[in-house]
Order: sequence, then structure tokens, then C-alpha cells
Amino acid sequence: MSSLGNSNNIFWQECPVGKLERQKLINQKGCVVWITGLSGSGKSTLAFALNRQLYSRGKLSYVLDGDNLRHGLNKDLGFSAEDRTENIRRVGEVAKLFADAGMICIASLISPYRKDRDACRAKLPDSNFIEASFLTKAVFMNTPLSLCESRDAKGLYKLARAGKIKGFTGIDDPYEPPLQCEIELQQIDGICRTPTAMSEQVVSYLEEKGYLEDQ
Amino acid sequence: MSSLGNSNNIFWQECPVGKLERQKLINQKGCVVWITGLSGSGKSTLAFALNRQLYSRGKLSYVLDGDNLRHGLNKDLGFSAEDRTENIRRVGEVAKLFADAGMICIASLISPYRKDRDACRAKLPDSNFIEASFLTKAVFMNTPLSLCESRDAKGLYKLARAGKIKGFTGIDDPYEPPLQCEIELQQIDGICRTPTAMSEQVVSYLEEKGYLEDQ
Repeated sequence: MSSLGNSNNIFWQECPVGKLERQKLINQKGCVVWITGLSGSGKSTLAFALNRQLYSRGKLSYVLDGDNLRHGLNKDLGFSAEDRTENIRRVGEVAKLFADAGMICIASLISPYRKDRDACRAKLPDSNFIEASFLTKAVFMNTPLSLCESRDAKGLYKLARAGKIKGFTGIDDPYEPPLQCEIELQQIDGICRTPTAMSEQVVSYLEEKGYLEDQ
Repeated sequence: MSSLGNSNNIFWQECPVGKLERQKLINQKGCVVWITGLSGSGKSTLAFALNRQLYSRGKLSYVLDGDNLRHGLNKDLGFSAEDRTENIRRVGEVAKLFADAGMICIASLISPYRKDRDACRAKLPDSNFIEASFLTKAVFMNTPLSLCESRDAKGLYKLARAGKIKGFTGIDDPYEPPLQCEIELQQIDGICRTPTAMSEQVVSYLEEKGYLEDQ
């Protein structure tokens, strides 16, 4: 846009601010914490607890909640296998942008199919190379179906059992647990752990990997 | 997820961190600066200059570039009127999330149709109420078609004139200039302004409206 001498055809392209610079500004490393599990397994509860705990340490995180996004970005999508895949794909793309922006992005979605989660992971390579430092931390809420169903805070399992909701994960649509993931959260000896205890486990992981360090 | 007495059915929902808290953490106010104009009008150049200038003032901004997003989030979309609308809708939704996260989101897209830009604006009400403080700053790059075409850095106008690209904005698809917008950037007496001068104008606007103040 600048004019140089008599020429109007030479354009000076300002160098964009890079991820490393943004990370320096806010003293953290951008990454994605991907929380997967059945409906009622405690994904949102963990997401919010983690969000709060990171905030109390002066770290900027943002929750991408699957249900909320279905009212906005993904409101054109239903629950067919194809639409679920597209739902996850878009959330993965947005999570990648947030991580690139320098934020700790907490994505909380049932994300039942392994291939869809793997596709998101592939976008965000887990690597120690700083050029590829997007890291997907898969957190698997390994809460048994029976417990999720007994909670049924939203009454969805009841509707699914009555056949009023079709394609409900765990009832008439599969949930494929991760074959490998960074963090697995489960009930220990049948005792529910507090959200704080669970989010502390995730925070420790992030800390250990250097994501909370000053950049 | 916590157990309270003997009951496993009482769930404590951690309160999520709100926009105001995030804004306090990074000392700025989240908003969207939406840059619209013809191909070659200088949108990306302005976006990057603005990004750099805000960074030098310690403010966190992020560029959502229309072309880049077509390689990721919007890679399933073409250039039909319907697909353009969906393209803008998704970018508007993502920009809203970024503003909610507390960031100054710089969206740079041709966004040729008025109704599509208006739909994004409606998502992000311009208001002085802090509850509705998402602000869409429409920045209109009012660069004449003849100048954009003479630059033709990407060679797209040439292809469009030769009929090798169909539905090209300004050639065989309309660009509807804003009827009202916050900032209009144009050539003054035929002299190109520098990207820095133009981004300073946007920064002054943001400053005046309190978006760069400590929260």
C-alpha cells in the first residue's frame, strides 16, 4: 500500500506477529486440551474447573464446549455420523487457531469416534519442536456408562432408552475409547474425585511439559 | 463430580471464568475489527500492520484471514453465493469466540455482500453496555477497482477477465460497499497511504472507545 518513488506497484507486506511473540506477551504456550467422554461423564465440569484453576495462576484459557458451539458455529449440523465428524473437524480447526493465538484451548466434546479425534490430533502435532508445538492433550473421562446414566442430569439417557433420541452415544451409537491418551481420569475404587483434584492432574501435566512457563 | 455425604448424585458445577475476568488478565477489551474490501484492496496488509502495532503496545490480537481459513475451517466451501454466505457466517462465529476470549480479533475478508456482514454485526452488538461489549468495527478498504486490478498481485483479476475464474468480486460478482461503517480507508487525492498510517487510524479508534485501556 505504500508508494515508493514513482511506483505504485511495489507493496510492502508488514510481517505478521508470530505465535512465539504472542506467547511471550501472555507468558504461556498455546495448546489444546481435548476432553472426550460419554454424555454425563463430567467433561464440562472438568473443563470449567481447569479454566478456573489456570486463571487463578494468571494463565489465559478458553473453553470450546461442544454443546454451546452447536448453537453457533455448528448450528447447521445434526447427529448423523457425517455431521458428528464435521462437528469435530470444525472444533479441531478452531482449537488450532486458539492454540496458534497463544491460548490454552480446552475443547470439551463427546467426540465418540476415534478417527475424528485422530484427525484433530494430526492437525496439532505433538512434538517438542517449537515450530510444531501445538499439542493436543487428549483427556479421557473414563466414567462408566452406568454411572453417567444414573446421573442423567439432562434427562437424555432416559429419552434415549425410550427411543425418543436416536444415535445417542453409549446407547445406540458407539463410544470408542482412546487407545492411547495423555491423561485418563477415572473413578478410583468407585469413589468420585472432585473436579479440583482432576483439574490439578491436568495442570500438573501442562506444567511438567512447560506449557505454563514464562516464554 | 464431587461426592457429598452419601450421595453421588449431587454435582458441583464450577463457575466458568467470564469475559470480564479474561479481559482483566490481559488488560484489554475483546472486540472484532472486520476489514472488508475488494481483492487487492490492501486488507491483509492492513490486518498485519494493525496486528503488529497492537503487539508493540502490548495488546494481544489475532488475524483471521479469509484466504487462510479456506485451507482449514472453510476448506469444504467454494465461491457460490451460498458458500460465501456460509464462509462469512463461520468466520463471524469464530470471531465472536475470539472476542469473548478477550482478544482483539482482526477479520480480513472480501465479504462482498452487505447482508452477510450485517449478520455478523448482529451477532456482535455494538453497544456501550459491558454485557454486550462485543464490537464489530467495520473497516471498509475503499480502494477503487481500477487500482486493485492494476496491482493484481495474485494475478486473479487477469484470470477473472479471461473468464478463467467465475464469480469474481468486482468483475462478475458484486461488491456491496457498506452503507455505514466505523472506519473508511481510502486513497486521498490519489496518494496511497502507508499501512502504518492506516493502522494508526484504526488503533486511534480502538483507543478512543476504550478497547486498549487496562480493564
